[in-house]
Amino acid sequence: MTCEGKTSDVEAFFASAPSLRDEDTIRQRVQVFIDEHRSRHNRLVCVTSGGTTVPLERRCVRFIDNFSSGNRGAASTEYFLKADYAVIFLYRGGTIQPFCRSVPDDALLTCLEPDDSHGIKVRAEFYSDVEHAIRGNHEGLMSHKLLKVPYTTLFEYLQILQIIATAAHSLQRLAMFYLAAAVSDFYVPWESMGEHKIQSAGGSLAMQLAGVPKMISVLREGWAPNAFCVSFKLETDQTILIQKANDALRKYRVHAVVANELNTRRKKVTIVTANGDTVIERTDQAPDVEMELVGFLCEKHAEFISNGQYT
Amino acid sequence: MTCEGKTSDVEAFFASAPSLRDEDTIRQRVQVFIDEHRSRHNRLVCVTSGGTTVPLERRCVRFIDNFSSGNRGAASTEYFLKADYAVIFLYRGGTIQPFCRSVPDDALLTCLEPDDSHGIKVRAEFYSDVEHAIRGNHEGLMSHKLLKVPYTTLFEYLQILQIIATAAHSLQRLAMFYLAAAVSDFYVPWESMGEHKIQSAGGSLAMQLAGVPKMISVLREGWAPNAFCVSFKLETDQTILIQKANDALRKYRVHAVVANELNTRRKKVTIVTANGDTVIERTDQAPDVEMELVGFLCEKHAEFISNGQYT
Repeated sequence: MTCEGKTSDVEAFFASAPSLRDEDTIRQRVQVFIDEHRSRHNRLVCVTSGGTTVPLERRCVRFIDNFSSGNRGAASTEYFLKADYAVIFLYRGGTIQPFCRSVPDDALLTCLEPDDSHGIKVRAEFYSDVEHAIRGNHEGLMSHKLLKVPYTTLFEYLQILQIIATAAHSLQRLAMFYLAAAVSDFYVPWESMGEHKIQSAGGSLAMQLAGVPKMISVLREGWAPNAFCVSFKLETDQTILIQKANDALRKYRVHAVVANELNTRRKKVTIVTANGDTVIERTDQAPDVEMELVGFLCEKHAEFISNGQYT
Repeated sequence: MTCEGKTSDVEAFFASAPSLRDEDTIRQRVQVFIDEHRSRHNRLVCVTSGGTTVPLERRCVRFIDNFSSGNRGAASTEYFLKADYAVIFLYRGGTIQPFCRSVPDDALLTCLEPDDSHGIKVRAEFYSDVEHAIRGNHEGLMSHKLLKVPYTTLFEYLQILQIIATAAHSLQRLAMFYLAAAVSDFYVPWESMGEHKIQSAGGSLAMQLAGVPKMISVLREGWAPNAFCVSFKLETDQTILIQKANDALRKYRVHAVVANELNTRRKKVTIVTANGDTVIERTDQAPDVEMELVGFLCEKHAEFISNGQYT
C-alpha cells in the first residue's frame, strides 16, 4: 500500500471507529446485489453522494458537516441507469434522491393538498415532477438495477464503502467507483473524543482535528484494484483546482478526476485523466452537465473493460 | 443590558454577520402575522426548533452543526395550536414539521407509489399519517394561526429571532418565547473566516472558535422584556443538568428552563422555575411528553398574563 493511505493509519482509523450499525444487513444486501449483476455480466457503478459528518462528541450533539446537496450524485445515477448500469447509490440520508431533482424541499407538505372529498391529492403544479420521481424510483428498485444505501457519519461512509468495494472486486473491470460524495478531510479520533457534550463555560473553544487517511489509495490498491475509479475535486479557488486534480490523479492512481469549482459546478467540469484534460460545459439544450459527464465516463469505462486501459 | 449579553459583544456579533437574505420579506410576514393577532388579543408563541449551523468558510463547504431532529418543536407547536395560540414556528430547514412526526424519512418516495391507472397514490399503510400531516399543516396555515419561518445558520437564526422578538414586544405579556432550538455556543466570526475552502495539506487542523454572545439575555432585557420566556437546557450528563438549568434561570432571567438529558429527553423533562422544579414524565397513556409540558407552560403563562407573575 502506497504513500497517502498508509496501512497502519488506515487500520488505526477503522480499529478506532464506532462499530457500524446493521453491518450484517448492509453486507448481505450489497453481496446479493453484486452477485446478481456478476452472474448477468452487467456493468456496475457505485455512486457516492452527499457529504459526511464528523462527530465532535461521542454522544453526538455537535458535528462538522461537509455541505453537499447530493444533486450531482442523484443526476449521475439517473444517467448510469439509462446507460444500463446497475447502481449502488451510497448517499447521505436526507440529500437529493435520483429522479427527485425537480421536487421541492419539504416535498410531502409542498406537493400534496387536501381534496374536496376528504382525501388528499398531488397539487396540479407538481404532478409531473412527483410522478417522475415516484415512477423512476419504483422502476429502479423493482428492476433490481438500483440499490440505495444511506450513511451519515464519515465512519459509516468509509465502512460501507469498504464493504461495497471488497465485494465489487469480484466484478473486476466491470465495476466503476464514482466518488462524488464530499468526504471530510479531518476528524476527531473516536478514542480522543469526549464522552459528554463540550462545555462552553470557558468562552472560546480550541479544537484539534486529525487528518483522515486517504482511503481512495486503499480502494485502488487493496479493496478493488481492478475497478475503474473516478474521484472528484471541489475547490472554491479556480486557480489551484486543476493542479490539485492532477496531483490527486497521480497520488491516488485513479483513472479520472472530475475537477469542479463551487460556484460553476452546475455548468462546467473538467475531467482530468492521464491522457489530458477534457472540459465539459453544459449547453443551453442540455438539462445538466451530468448527462455528458456520465456519457464520457461510460465510454472510457468501456475502453478500459476491453483493453485494460483507455485513451 | 446585563452580564452575559454585553451590548458591545452583541452589537459586534450582528455587525459582523453576513446580511440576512430576504430580510424585508421575512420582516413583513412576521409583522403582518403579529399585527393580526394583536388586533384579536390572541396569545402568540414563537417556537424555535432544530439546530443551527456555524459556517467554517465564507463560501461555505464545511460547517459545524448542532444536532436536533426538531421533534420537540414540532410536537409543541401542535399543542400550542390546540391551546388556541398563534404560533411562529422558527425552524431549521429539513427538520420535522408540525403534524409530520409519524411520517417516515424521505416521505415522498416512501409514502407514494404508482397506481394501476398510470397515476400515483398514497400507500395504504401510510395513508392516515400522511392525511394527518397534510390536513394539520393546511388548517394551521389557512386559519392564519401558524407562520413557518426557516433558517439554517446561527446568523440567520439570531437575526430572525431579533425580528420576531422586537415585533412581538407590542403583544406585551401575551407573547411567549419557547426556545427549543439547539443553538451553537461557538462560532467563527465572519471577518476572521477564510474566503476559500480550508486546505488539508498540513495533515491536521487546529480551529479556534469564539463564544456566541448569550442572546437570551438580550431578548429578555432589550427585544421583548414583557414576554414570557422559556429556554431549554440539553446535557448528556445528568449530574450537572439541573444545576446548569438553575444557573441559566438566574443568569438569563427567563421564566422557566426546561432541562432535558439527551438519552431520556423523549420521556422526561424537568421544568425549573423560580418557584421550584416540576418533573414531567410521559405516562404510558400519553402520546408524548410535550402534551403535558405545553399544558403546564400555558397555565403558567395564563397566570403571568393576569398577574405579571406566576406561582
